[in-house]
Amino acid sequence: MKYSKKERQKLLQQTIIDNPFVTDEQLASQFNVSVQTIRLDRMELSIPELRERIKGVAAHNFENDVKSLPIDEVIGDIIDIELDERALSIFDVKEEHVFQRNGIARGHHLFAQANSLAVAVIDDDLALTVHSEIHFVKPVRAGDRVISKALVTGKDDSKSRTFIELTSTVENEVVFAGKFEMYRTKGKGEK
Amino acid sequence: MKYSKKERQKLLQQTIIDNPFVTDEQLASQFNVSVQTIRLDRMELSIPELRERIKGVAAHNFENDVKSLPIDEVIGDIIDIELDERALSIFDVKEEHVFQRNGIARGHHLFAQANSLAVAVIDDDLALTVHSEIHFVKPVRAGDRVISKALVTGKDDSKSRTFIELTSTVENEVVFAGKFEMYRTKGKGEK
Repeated sequence: MKYSKKERQKLLQQTIIDNPFVTDEQLASQFNVSVQTIRLDRMELSIPELRERIKGVAAHNFENDVKSLPIDEVIGDIIDIELDERALSIFDVKEEHVFQRNGIARGHHLFAQANSLAVAVIDDDLALTVHSEIHFVKPVRAGDRVISKALVTGKDDSKSRTFIELTSTVENEVVFAGKFEMYRTKGKGEK
Repeated sequence: MKYSKKERQKLLQQTIIDNPFVTDEQLASQFNVSVQTIRLDRMELSIPELRERIKGVAAHNFENDVKSLPIDEVIGDIIDIELDERALSIFDVKEEHVFQRNGIARGHHLFAQANSLAVAVIDDDLALTVHSEIHFVKPVRAGDRVISKALVTGKDDSKSRTFIELTSTVENEVVFAGKFEMYRTKGKGEK
């Protein structure tokens, strides 16, 4: 379906607000126009290109926000975090992350992004994974950008546990989902 | 408790048969004698040192036994495998596998050993993890040798699924346990 330029630019703007990580190629395919048209639309609307949009998000250094581990131990890049509430990271899948034979990303890399995000979201000095249930929903390939969202869904302070639900998507499609039960040192209120 | 030399050597022999990966240090601690005494016992009993025992096991090259992935993609070293039945691997935890802050092995490395063993045990050209439930039972540290055992417990050919139970131990204590549901291409009988 073709939109008028005005309609397209309106929808384009909304699409980028909803998903700042959408690429020009994805937008071109979605609106059935050329990548060049999308670039011109963005220029007219003063929307920076994807790389600049990501830089803008990453300009905030989350090093001082994450407590449970040094930020360079997080697999993927944290792009938003509110401790004990939610966290968001992106992980770009490269050739070294996939099976040689079929080009599908190896499970432990997706798990590593998810698990380290589950550790990072904890508002405490120590966080360890106790139990996890994970689903590999859809194959991921080199070149894919995986966006993981971790949501803290509950706590059991008597057992020093925090419960997290996590979803990883590629182009808004779920590729991985997991539940994590984390052990943590006692929360501030109990010290 | 101290044993007589004869008793000790008999028990030592049985202990090494039960667990070929036991170290001289572990044996010394178990029998409450010096490491030197264990070495002399082994010499008298003609039991090679741990490194040689492992080499003996690893002398068999499993490259032609594993079908679902090239053997260099397995995390850890496979030391025994019977396709669609069971598999065994060892993984030596090094400094690069642990959290800087607390020296505890990162979950995704234990998961990587387990998950790649679950892939390797499948008697088919393609195997992908669909679902997994895992428990991190006990912290693992640098210097630990993790032995993973994968056991195929069931199949659902109509859904191309294989079910695997996996246990990882350090010095005979369980550190990690998991259940894996694997997708595979159709078995030979159905081709």
